[in-house]
Amino acid sequence: MNPKSIAVIGASGDPRKGGYALVSNLKEKIPEGLYPVNPGASEICGIPVFKSVDDLPENVDLAVIFIPAAAVPEAMEACGKKGISRIMIQSAGFAETGPKGLALQEACLRVAKKHGMRVWGPNCMGVVNGSTGLVASFMRPDIWRGHLKPGNVSLIVQSGMLSAGFVVQVLKEGFFGLSKACSIGNRCDVNESDLLEYFAEDPQTEVIAMYLESIIDVSRFRNAMSGLGKPVVLLKGGTSEEGAQAARSHTGSLAGDGRLTEGFLRQVKIQRATDFFEMVDMARGLSLWQGRERGKRMGIVTFSGASGIVAADHFAALGMTLAPLSPETIRTLKKVFPPWMNPQNPVDVWPAIERVGQKAFEVAIKAMLADSQVDALYLHLYMDRKILEEGVEFLEVLRGAYKPAAIWVMGEPQCFRELRDLVEPFGVPVFTEVGRGARVLSMKLASPHP
Amino acid sequence: MNPKSIAVIGASGDPRKGGYALVSNLKEKIPEGLYPVNPGASEICGIPVFKSVDDLPENVDLAVIFIPAAAVPEAMEACGKKGISRIMIQSAGFAETGPKGLALQEACLRVAKKHGMRVWGPNCMGVVNGSTGLVASFMRPDIWRGHLKPGNVSLIVQSGMLSAGFVVQVLKEGFFGLSKACSIGNRCDVNESDLLEYFAEDPQTEVIAMYLESIIDVSRFRNAMSGLGKPVVLLKGGTSEEGAQAARSHTGSLAGDGRLTEGFLRQVKIQRATDFFEMVDMARGLSLWQGRERGKRMGIVTFSGASGIVAADHFAALGMTLAPLSPETIRTLKKVFPPWMNPQNPVDVWPAIERVGQKAFEVAIKAMLADSQVDALYLHLYMDRKILEEGVEFLEVLRGAYKPAAIWVMGEPQCFRELRDLVEPFGVPVFTEVGRGARVLSMKLASPHP
Repeated sequence: MNPKSIAVIGASGDPRKGGYALVSNLKEKIPEGLYPVNPGASEICGIPVFKSVDDLPENVDLAVIFIPAAAVPEAMEACGKKGISRIMIQSAGFAETGPKGLALQEACLRVAKKHGMRVWGPNCMGVVNGSTGLVASFMRPDIWRGHLKPGNVSLIVQSGMLSAGFVVQVLKEGFFGLSKACSIGNRCDVNESDLLEYFAEDPQTEVIAMYLESIIDVSRFRNAMSGLGKPVVLLKGGTSEEGAQAARSHTGSLAGDGRLTEGFLRQVKIQRATDFFEMVDMARGLSLWQGRERGKRMGIVTFSGASGIVAADHFAALGMTLAPLSPETIRTLKKVFPPWMNPQNPVDVWPAIERVGQKAFEVAIKAMLADSQVDALYLHLYMDRKILEEGVEFLEVLRGAYKPAAIWVMGEPQCFRELRDLVEPFGVPVFTEVGRGARVLSMKLASPHP
Repeated sequence: MNPKSIAVIGASGDPRKGGYALVSNLKEKIPEGLYPVNPGASEICGIPVFKSVDDLPENVDLAVIFIPAAAVPEAMEACGKKGISRIMIQSAGFAETGPKGLALQEACLRVAKKHGMRVWGPNCMGVVNGSTGLVASFMRPDIWRGHLKPGNVSLIVQSGMLSAGFVVQVLKEGFFGLSKACSIGNRCDVNESDLLEYFAEDPQTEVIAMYLESIIDVSRFRNAMSGLGKPVVLLKGGTSEEGAQAARSHTGSLAGDGRLTEGFLRQVKIQRATDFFEMVDMARGLSLWQGRERGKRMGIVTFSGASGIVAADHFAALGMTLAPLSPETIRTLKKVFPPWMNPQNPVDVWPAIERVGQKAFEVAIKAMLADSQVDALYLHLYMDRKILEEGVEFLEVLRGAYKPAAIWVMGEPQCFRELRDLVEPFGVPVFTEVGRGARVLSMKLASPHP
């Protein structure tokens, strides 16, 4: 995750190639210890190129390999002779392509064993370290530049291409700050359990989100989870017979019996997502609500009666309940509501907005957060340019909320990002679908093994 | 839906008020027959104002009332004397506020009965006719101008404020062209069954999406549904005990026993959504796939193995199956795939893209659409600025697809709208979550009563 020196075996001078992107990405953070290797080039991105691994002036911390699969074992042999002990193979063409590729992958492992090397990949997109800004991946530079921000969520993705598309979107949407994004590919050596063990010790990582089709070593994984003490969200591919069959022929992953997996994952207290951005949204909630607790009694505040009703339906389906409001909260709400209205949960503030403006939200949110019978708050807002221009100070009351709170927003989509930028620093995630926010608010928040 | 002349009772000269928005919205389409009524103004938006309903020079097709609730019965009486038989009350303060408001609403109904009037509302946002551009609503003009486009989907929304926020977002996101958007509020007279009967005869409406908390007259609704011959998507509020209780105190709606409702709605062949934009997405699919049929055998084409696996999991959970590919399709795919790869469904085209570029998508999509064993197609694309600039002609093959097809996209969110604008004219909706697209593709497509 933090190499001081890196050799790029398969560096390229052609800006359209991944071997160029690797050098271009890495030189930002490793200006001194970066060694492109290519027998036919003398300089790439202004950095002198070495003809071979033998020519390298020092024993680097990490060798990233991005050359045709058939040539990888020989390159690894050269690395071994040089004393390089950490190898990341980003090339494809190994076990995922059939018996011939599998044989190549096994040849790599033999070289690794002989020289005592650890191997990451092959068939992967490498690693992005959001904490330091290191991008050890053949991802195009224009994709991530300006979008990387440090944070407390780490990703583990077992998929070559998907990790690219997925991580790009996570970065561009700014869903959360990244601690580390790890594309682990075929996992011939380094696997999800290694990473969980690493993340247990990594102070920058507080939440882990994973896409996996299988678990390589179930008992090691169980141990890693029990020593982790940090929440994990998992999207598991191959939960159906059809999906499992596709996984078998895709990466040779044994996705296994759905029900067995289900039981095991529940035992190790992993939270399950069913969609890629549901996984992201759940991780975002866990990231923002670190250290907060949540009971089952929801408080709902909305600008419309219908929103409260549908939100209540979702919470009921998720096993949550509606908090009965305390007399104190009802007294407070009555001060801003018209006399004919008997405030209750869900609180539809519209009649109060007509009397006192958006301040009605402030009063309702504050009362709900202070009510000991309310465990968590779900807020439905309408947002447009005009409301943003008139000022949304009424949301300041969410700052420092010690209960989990989330916003579900409707209105002008162009305004949603501004709303997020305003309230996420208060620890309040913003969602655009009632069901998604309700799902995230219904997650278990406590770390599995505190 | 198509009044030639309208009186706005409660027109206002203050641009911050709804009574101003009403006049401003209506004058675009009713420049001749628009009559603002306000005892204290002489001109609004350049249109002469009448002191009272009595002063109106003609008997208008529709009177829109937007004055305090207590004054509405008297205004209706004046309309009745003038011979105006269609009333739309957009003011709030009626049954939704308790016994006093309910009494007012009943007073309105008595006036209506006496004069043989039909009444829309009260407590509603009125109607938007996307086919003609008529906006009979106090919605702010800046919200809808430039975003209204005619289409074949009509909305019925039983909620005051929500309809605003929701319709605004539907318009701004351009989810689909609107035939009519109807906010029906308290439904003291005109209700969902009246609208279904109207839409049965409305050539501009081919799909109907509804948010309802209750059905006013179950047997009339059943008849309206059986005579409709057009698909209906419903998001029902109050499906849980908690939600139903909130609905009772919100609009006095009897949301009823969840299981009974469930059975009834299945009988009348309504398709159920659980989220507002799921409802929109389902309506969009029905709108784009008009006249196409769908069996259960899905074809999946993706840029990544993992996407195909997760998509297969979703279809399995939705009761769909993976199509076994015909020998002809497999032969075609083999021409672009590397020799080591045995093409199967889900088709991960990445290895073929590495050989022949994005043309691999074209080959795979064409083969799947031609395969008689494939009933519908789900396509997962990675999209970014660079791919758009290089050209996405490979998607032209979707034009005129006679099978339902949908795209699930990942990558740079800034590019998704362009992709939609390109492929939706081919009848192919674009989704950003695997589960949502799978849900929409799994809908029944045939009209309930052809």
